[in-house]
Amino acid sequence: MGLPKDSGLELHSKWQRGKLNLITDVPGVKVANVTIQDGAEINTGVTAILPHTGDIFHDKVMAGVSVINGFGKSLGLVQVEELGTIETPIIMTNTLSVGTAAEALTEYMLERNDDIGVKTGTVNCLVTECNDGRLNDIRGLHVKKEHVREALSKAEADGDTFEEGAVGGGTGMCCLGLKGGIGSSSRIVKVDDRDYTVGAIVMSNFGGSGNLVIGGDHIGKRIRERMAAEDKKDLGSIIMIIATDIPLSDRQLKRVAKRSSIALGRCGSYLGNGSGDIAVAFSTGNRVPHYSDKSLIDIKMYDDEKIDRVFEAAVEAVEESVISSMYHAETTKGVRGNIYYGLREFL
Amino acid sequence: MGLPKDSGLELHSKWQRGKLNLITDVPGVKVANVTIQDGAEINTGVTAILPHTGDIFHDKVMAGVSVINGFGKSLGLVQVEELGTIETPIIMTNTLSVGTAAEALTEYMLERNDDIGVKTGTVNCLVTECNDGRLNDIRGLHVKKEHVREALSKAEADGDTFEEGAVGGGTGMCCLGLKGGIGSSSRIVKVDDRDYTVGAIVMSNFGGSGNLVIGGDHIGKRIRERMAAEDKKDLGSIIMIIATDIPLSDRQLKRVAKRSSIALGRCGSYLGNGSGDIAVAFSTGNRVPHYSDKSLIDIKMYDDEKIDRVFEAAVEAVEESVISSMYHAETTKGVRGNIYYGLREFL
Amino acid sequence: MGLPKDSGLELHSKWQRGKLNLITDVPGVKVANVTIQDGAEINTGVTAILPHTGDIFHDKVMAGVSVINGFGKSLGLVQVEELGTIETPIIMTNTLSVGTAAEALTEYMLERNDDIGVKTGTVNCLVTECNDGRLNDIRGLHVKKEHVREALSKAEADGDTFEEGAVGGGTGMCCLGLKGGIGSSSRIVKVDDRDYTVGAIVMSNFGGSGNLVIGGDHIGKRIRERMAAEDKKDLGSIIMIIATDIPLSDRQLKRVAKRSSIALGRCGSYLGNGSGDIAVAFSTGNRVPHYSDKSLIDIKMYDDEKIDRVFEAAVEAVEESVISSMYHAETTKGVRGNIYYGLREFL
Amino acid sequence: MGLPKDSGLELHSKWQRGKLNLITDVPGVKVANVTIQDGAEINTGVTAILPHTGDIFHDKVMAGVSVINGFGKSLGLVQVEELGTIETPIIMTNTLSVGTAAEALTEYMLERNDDIGVKTGTVNCLVTECNDGRLNDIRGLHVKKEHVREALSKAEADGDTFEEGAVGGGTGMCCLGLKGGIGSSSRIVKVDDRDYTVGAIVMSNFGGSGNLVIGGDHIGKRIRERMAAEDKKDLGSIIMIIATDIPLSDRQLKRVAKRSSIALGRCGSYLGNGSGDIAVAFSTGNRVPHYSDKSLIDIKMYDDEKIDRVFEAAVEAVEESVISSMYHAETTKGVRGNIYYGLREFL
Repeated sequence: MGLPKDSGLELHSKWQRGKLNLITDVPGVKVANVTIQDGAEINTGVTAILPHTGDIFHDKVMAGVSVINGFGKSLGLVQVEELGTIETPIIMTNTLSVGTAAEALTEYMLERNDDIGVKTGTVNCLVTECNDGRLNDIRGLHVKKEHVREALSKAEADGDTFEEGAVGGGTGMCCLGLKGGIGSSSRIVKVDDRDYTVGAIVMSNFGGSGNLVIGGDHIGKRIRERMAAEDKKDLGSIIMIIATDIPLSDRQLKRVAKRSSIALGRCGSYLGNGSGDIAVAFSTGNRVPHYSDKSLIDIKMYDDEKIDRVFEAAVEAVEESVISSMYHAETTKGVRGNIYYGLREFL
Repeated sequence: MGLPKDSGLELHSKWQRGKLNLITDVPGVKVANVTIQDGAEINTGVTAILPHTGDIFHDKVMAGVSVINGFGKSLGLVQVEELGTIETPIIMTNTLSVGTAAEALTEYMLERNDDIGVKTGTVNCLVTECNDGRLNDIRGLHVKKEHVREALSKAEADGDTFEEGAVGGGTGMCCLGLKGGIGSSSRIVKVDDRDYTVGAIVMSNFGGSGNLVIGGDHIGKRIRERMAAEDKKDLGSIIMIIATDIPLSDRQLKRVAKRSSIALGRCGSYLGNGSGDIAVAFSTGNRVPHYSDKSLIDIKMYDDEKIDRVFEAAVEAVEESVISSMYHAETTKGVRGNIYYGLREFL
Repeated sequence: MGLPKDSGLELHSKWQRGKLNLITDVPGVKVANVTIQDGAEINTGVTAILPHTGDIFHDKVMAGVSVINGFGKSLGLVQVEELGTIETPIIMTNTLSVGTAAEALTEYMLERNDDIGVKTGTVNCLVTECNDGRLNDIRGLHVKKEHVREALSKAEADGDTFEEGAVGGGTGMCCLGLKGGIGSSSRIVKVDDRDYTVGAIVMSNFGGSGNLVIGGDHIGKRIRERMAAEDKKDLGSIIMIIATDIPLSDRQLKRVAKRSSIALGRCGSYLGNGSGDIAVAFSTGNRVPHYSDKSLIDIKMYDDEKIDRVFEAAVEAVEESVISSMYHAETTKGVRGNIYYGLREFL
Repeated sequence: MGLPKDSGLELHSKWQRGKLNLITDVPGVKVANVTIQDGAEINTGVTAILPHTGDIFHDKVMAGVSVINGFGKSLGLVQVEELGTIETPIIMTNTLSVGTAAEALTEYMLERNDDIGVKTGTVNCLVTECNDGRLNDIRGLHVKKEHVREALSKAEADGDTFEEGAVGGGTGMCCLGLKGGIGSSSRIVKVDDRDYTVGAIVMSNFGGSGNLVIGGDHIGKRIRERMAAEDKKDLGSIIMIIATDIPLSDRQLKRVAKRSSIALGRCGSYLGNGSGDIAVAFSTGNRVPHYSDKSLIDIKMYDDEKIDRVFEAAVEAVEESVISSMYHAETTKGVRGNIYYGLREFL
């Protein structure tokens, strides 16, 4: 739902929000969260994103990546960069569970595609991560393959809408000294008289305490004073997934992904050393078949001279996703007695 | 001088400004402007930056580049990327004069180094540019080699301080719907008990009208209403040069350069398509000799775990440089009757 | 013409050569050389390549760049990378004349397009270079704007065929201890039952003496023994331009350009430090309009699963271009009494 | 052992081989293989490489990456690129087992470092892969965490020497139409009067049948004729790890890694679309501490003007590693009755 109208927070947005104000406003995109908590030391989970509801492996979406700061351990980015496509769902989870999530996603893809590894090559699983060790017993490796599979099933069955805040992969994440998590938003962009959608979902875990900015208001300073907390280092990371049904080429999707650094800056980031800031953008409007009879495939690209509206909409959607992830996140206690407060406690 | 204390503008800076609040606070760095104007259609010029006052070709500075948006025509970036060094002064001028400036800088380097092209290889001239065609008769190619040479001589003779605003390479530049130009600022960073400086200089020419943000205040919206002007496209570009005496490796200087996208975001940019946003960072604290007796050269790198302070200081210096370039710029009339107003007319 | 059939040299080619065995077998591509020599110290020149015979600025060709080794000073690569298009002819000349050539090419573009700098933005001139200082008095800056204009006019008027060897930009270039220069070749590739062409042109100036390999034969060792010459360092560079009428996307053209490192390896290169090894690939089969009514533009991409034939053909064309540049080059005496022998003297 | 002296194969090497002619000639580097075979459908395994025998996480080695062709699924490359260091052992295994290997390597690192995820951030596990599905039942996911742990333990206990050929991660790999696998080699390079080593290890799985070249001899053509086999597509990939005790900077290690494309070309590759060609280079001669008291760390870089010898030695070591991987590999029968012959059957 992004930021509710009565939140009292204003982001200087120019572009109209989508119906749900979620990434799932982009037709076909589905999302689900699985939250793993024990009320004490375990605060982690999985978020799954389906680029479309069909056969993703054989009907790939065009995609681009921007590694804004590469202090991160995501799996699968290199091939997206080379081939300009995504061929699996996207998983968000904690850093030390990338291996487990990759194993689960591999099994999921093998079950659905009996040509993989036999008639054709392998599969490029896309698994993204942030470090939730400030609230989660990350060393305990509490994400199991079942959790990943559950998130995928749930997205398939019921992924049109989903919760934001301290849920799914975002359960144990912290952002700008407060509680972070999963956030989403969308914007409507008219292209040649047709309405298209640009949506975003983030797993927010970046930024130093006191740095939060909302719509130009340096609210973080005031919050830090109320908390009387010491400065916390800009640890953590952020994963930003941008989806659209506008037919953009892989080069253009990379450009869109790259603009998400501006959204981070609007929220108070300076791209801290320890923050793996990774953005992935894909378009459901340009599909690439796994098997093609013809050598030449028709695709569309956007006139770069007119693409600014897409850039702006993407920046706005990512910015609102970050603030929304914090707005919806409940105060969470976790490992070693750490507490991270939800943003709403200070509004 | 950056923003004067009595400007009434506040940027939420954390780090102390340097003595002059200019890039020339970094010891050895020199800058000079040559302004070319005829009171009518010609509004262009040259800015020259010397990385140090010695023999730059034989005693190179370590450097990194970040092509934030590559819609630009700068010369020399590829080799800086490959070898991690700068070996000439840096020129800023208008886009269509890059060839002329390269010719002039080549001649300057040949005069000073009779080994180039004979005993050793050639030389990598660094010439950067923005499109000043909104105020300048850019098709007239009014920058001549003499102007470039004059800027270089002036920087050598008297480059400790320099003017900001509609001067030098910035004479005809426009920024966020207002008059842009040359701006500079610096920050002091203490490292292991010693004070170092991070300085920046920009040639600002980016951004759409109405988008200007200063310290979180969306002042651009109010200015646009007063101007009753139509929306202008986000044309133009920005060149950002960051200098420091902190010994950073080439990889780290690239990281510093990359952070300047955050500074642009703070000022209201969303990295528009048409904006060649190019950042170059160099360190006078790591020198690379052109001829070395030994194969192994001692250099220093910064502990990446502690580098955030350098990132923050660089972001602040670039941000203030942009706002300072606008603050100092006088309203300028130019080609085709175009007028771009100085920021101070709205304060 | 590439390697003549009676050259006695065999390259293990799989793909059929084009009619002229030149890059100009790609329909629309034109090339011309202007050679500048005084019989003594001056051995330099200009080669101009037209991507097509129409209005290149308003009807751009899709393109990709691979900076294989960035010890080079070419102008214009950054924007090709960002936007995936070429909008001017391509110039090859000596390193220290890049500025002059850029100035000339800028003037050429301004004359033909009165919207540049007024109604629209500027223009991205593509100027490539190698260091011909071993045979040419490169410090004398003997390339003048007239030479560049002459090469452009000649390509327009009469660019279907052209000479190879010690001509044009290649006049003073040296390769693998022998005389290098301009070389070209082409291959026919059948795609979905239609014949397309992949052509290449190189300006060869790379490689250490003794390292030349032709079709697997380490002939360079034998030549060096006959010459009783000391080892020469791997100086210099190579510019490789690949053209095709197969509709490839910018990402794919970048991939094609990247394969040219294999061609260099086949000829004996190990990508020496001092060699600016730059490859640019463009397709006349995907055009991008400067002004478009619609936001969405139809283009074609190649099925990456079938693209190996294009990769192979490009590698072969670049490899033969390098050997052809040496085969056609006459022994040349130049500055400081240096002599570089033509390959044919050793066959 | 690389190629034995009596192999009858000649590679035109210039540089002297190391004592064992293995990557473990670089002091501190250890390697071990675990081979997983059932005599029928299972042909896979794990190879582990320790950059040094100490505490790798707290005493990192400087490193660089070159993604020569990014059709690959390796984990951990992005952070090596950003920070220029490796902080774990390197695992080689089959593509679909990257998740399992990552899980095992994560657990290994957690056991040895109780600060990870508590006192400090997480850990960047480096797991590389090729697709062994032509000989291995890759869909069966036969690599278990125990195999990875066994490879790590074996490397620690007894990793000074190791087998090549159809072993470890290379058990089911195929190369240039024949059996591929694990291969290694090393070269001695004198730097400022001291002997250093450049070593390589590869997991070879690239190239089309008939394309094999050894020392310039296109032996692949003759072998294919004897096999009367149809052309096989250039599937598969290659992982190339280069180690040295020469103190190189991260930028320089990236340059070294990039040169491995030349080694592939020498063996007959044209960088096929489906081949994930990934090179990683590290130096034990530049160490980066995880915790540093000081902000400024002393490192060394190599004079780039003299670095060609390192480039050449690395190319030779990688080239010999590829040929050695094929030379030592036994003919292997596998899944679906596929047979890949060892190179020695054709010598």
